[in-house]
Amino acid sequence: MSDIETLPMNSVSELGARSKAASRVLASVSTSQKNSALQMAAESVLDSAEGILDGNQKDVDTAREMNVDELTIDRLQLTEKRIRSMAEGLRKVTALPDPVGEIVDDWTRPNGLKIRRVRVPLGVVAVIYENRPNVTSDTFGLCLKSGNSALLRGSSAAINSNSAIVGALQCALSQAGLPSDSVLLVEDTSHETAIKFMQLNGYVDCLIPRGGRSLIESIRENATVPYVIDGDGNCHVYVDEHADFSQGIEILVNAKTQRPTVCNAAESLVVHASVAQSFLPLAVKALQGVEFVGDEISQKIVPEIAAATDDDFSTEYLDLKLSVKVVDSLGDAIDHINETGSGHSEAIITSDVANAEEFSMRVDAAAVLVNASTRFVDGEEFGFGAEIGISTQKLHARGPMGLEQLTTNKYIVNGMGHIRG
Amino acid sequence: MSDIETLPMNSVSELGARSKAASRVLASVSTSQKNSALQMAAESVLDSAEGILDGNQKDVDTAREMNVDELTIDRLQLTEKRIRSMAEGLRKVTALPDPVGEIVDDWTRPNGLKIRRVRVPLGVVAVIYENRPNVTSDTFGLCLKSGNSALLRGSSAAINSNSAIVGALQCALSQAGLPSDSVLLVEDTSHETAIKFMQLNGYVDCLIPRGGRSLIESIRENATVPYVIDGDGNCHVYVDEHADFSQGIEILVNAKTQRPTVCNAAESLVVHASVAQSFLPLAVKALQGVEFVGDEISQKIVPEIAAATDDDFSTEYLDLKLSVKVVDSLGDAIDHINETGSGHSEAIITSDVANAEEFSMRVDAAAVLVNASTRFVDGEEFGFGAEIGISTQKLHARGPMGLEQLTTNKYIVNGMGHIRG
Repeated sequence: MSDIETLPMNSVSELGARSKAASRVLASVSTSQKNSALQMAAESVLDSAEGILDGNQKDVDTAREMNVDELTIDRLQLTEKRIRSMAEGLRKVTALPDPVGEIVDDWTRPNGLKIRRVRVPLGVVAVIYENRPNVTSDTFGLCLKSGNSALLRGSSAAINSNSAIVGALQCALSQAGLPSDSVLLVEDTSHETAIKFMQLNGYVDCLIPRGGRSLIESIRENATVPYVIDGDGNCHVYVDEHADFSQGIEILVNAKTQRPTVCNAAESLVVHASVAQSFLPLAVKALQGVEFVGDEISQKIVPEIAAATDDDFSTEYLDLKLSVKVVDSLGDAIDHINETGSGHSEAIITSDVANAEEFSMRVDAAAVLVNASTRFVDGEEFGFGAEIGISTQKLHARGPMGLEQLTTNKYIVNGMGHIRG
Repeated sequence: MSDIETLPMNSVSELGARSKAASRVLASVSTSQKNSALQMAAESVLDSAEGILDGNQKDVDTAREMNVDELTIDRLQLTEKRIRSMAEGLRKVTALPDPVGEIVDDWTRPNGLKIRRVRVPLGVVAVIYENRPNVTSDTFGLCLKSGNSALLRGSSAAINSNSAIVGALQCALSQAGLPSDSVLLVEDTSHETAIKFMQLNGYVDCLIPRGGRSLIESIRENATVPYVIDGDGNCHVYVDEHADFSQGIEILVNAKTQRPTVCNAAESLVVHASVAQSFLPLAVKALQGVEFVGDEISQKIVPEIAAATDDDFSTEYLDLKLSVKVVDSLGDAIDHINETGSGHSEAIITSDVANAEEFSMRVDAAAVLVNASTRFVDGEEFGFGAEIGISTQKLHARGPMGLEQLTTNKYIVNGMGHIRG
């Protein structure tokens, strides 16, 4: 650890302290000042396009030298179009309502004490993420609008891209008269520093990991600051005995194939036994190119379905693969989903109102969808404007996290010399 | 670990699984059924008074054998009166509004998707606590009313008391037709089991520690489930240059001495330099019996004030001791409080509205009080009816945690075959 400590002005705890100090200033900055800083940040990103692309090219070259797969390189690669889209993202945040200062609730106690519950920024929002350099500016935008400083730790693969983007953002902050420390990047991308980043107690108010299962496991193991898990999406589509088949097929195809690599894509099909014989062949036909694994009954109905292991039913494939389970009742479907799901997004296809209601009430997930694709569960589609992630835990935020989820409450109590008897 | 695993029906993970299963049932139980179970629980606690007192006597005898101090024994000791008060607590919860099922928000998207945000139980609420057997029934009451199962791990010192209380509660649950596993006590009070208790991923939805600093540290080190910290209260009373002295003295005396051992008691007095000379002597006189430590200026003004160390300003004494700091401005007071405080409850005494406003906005704490005692910051005084703790973190819940803070949200999305384009 000692070599980290001696990095001048750059040790993780030094960055944490600076981020905290900036957050104290941001907490009382006006909406218009935040919006004008966001506009300047958008300009600055565009003006710095050349430098950002240069930095990005270094990252891409390094990735190619290391024989990284093309999908990963595509996620890493920036283009002028992607930079314009980053700037556009910052501008869009200016149009969103500022959650800070909202009086969530107020009341007067019988003794005359006046209590207000006010929405305030979290303080320092720390985000640890993999590749995708646009996360850098998106996160900054949402954090600034909600009055938080952003303390970022991207991957080593994107270090030059992220560094150039943060430089552009800091430049805009200074121009706007706000602390440039409102966004800080941890440039030491070692594993040891990542662990230290997860343990910045006293500095970090909320840590949000955005990445795969190993990152989430590392957070659970190592983090000592409060965090929100943006976890797996092992999402199910359940076709009820009273389902409209054509709706069911359309939704299933959309949920599975429209963008298979994201967390709100479907990973498993659950079918009521009374319609399995007729629905499954249609599903397999409609989902050509998708690999199917299923339980014994489903295999008997459609020979193209291979045998599923128990693990399959708990797996988020993020790929053109789907597990199939036939159940005897709505209750069995709910139990199966609650047992194997990850609490993200779960859909039922049914024309029976009572079944829809029972499914909605008893399925334990951030979002339950009735006759709609699981793909709708994100901040944009919900109308939050943008999101910093989709929480699969129940504390603080559940489901898409927009600006409101980047705030907390403060109680302000006004008395006239009140003492407790 | 293997010896724990083989404890039949009693291993921590077995208890976690049973608690989870019970929570699935509780999530859709009606308010009236929960209320009648709470009434029966109150009856059952009274009916079991003899057994509970017997169990408690064993705990007290053991504590005396181990030469435990009288204050701790007082917290452990049950009496008929305290048992009646436990039953009364359960009855009071029946009168509180049921937060479950509330539609927090609903809207329709331009594409016709209808989205409802509904309040639902967390699931399994795990509480780890020290002594005070009444926490057992209080926690159960709040958890049941909010549709959660309670998974409890009390201290070894109170094991016989807790076991008898949980027995009485489980008996009432069975009578009421609810799963008796809705409240479960981990009877193995070893350290290893406590660690396992903090790592019940997949079973525990929210862990709430109620205890001292070492428990909190252990949670930060070891917990892998989501938790809410009910932490220290290093609360300040700041006497502004525009303070009404008699109000200031009354509030200070109340905040420091009305119940010095609780988290919302004041631990530090901050005084504006322009009034220190006149206010400090009054404060020391009014707080006879309280030990004072302070900075150099305060020592010069009042010789009874001993020298404070830096540590003093960050210490929650929970005792008749007060640290004193003289500051040159409101801004310095705010900075000092933000640096040394624990984010619990902070009071300002002032008749200047602008100063009150600035203090309220810029002090970073769960509760800020203007001309009122810090002692008001708890669930009862806020009108929440009861509380399961006072959160000093910013995620999920901040400040007193009542029934609402024992819930989360679920989004229910209704479509008509909606797919994403």
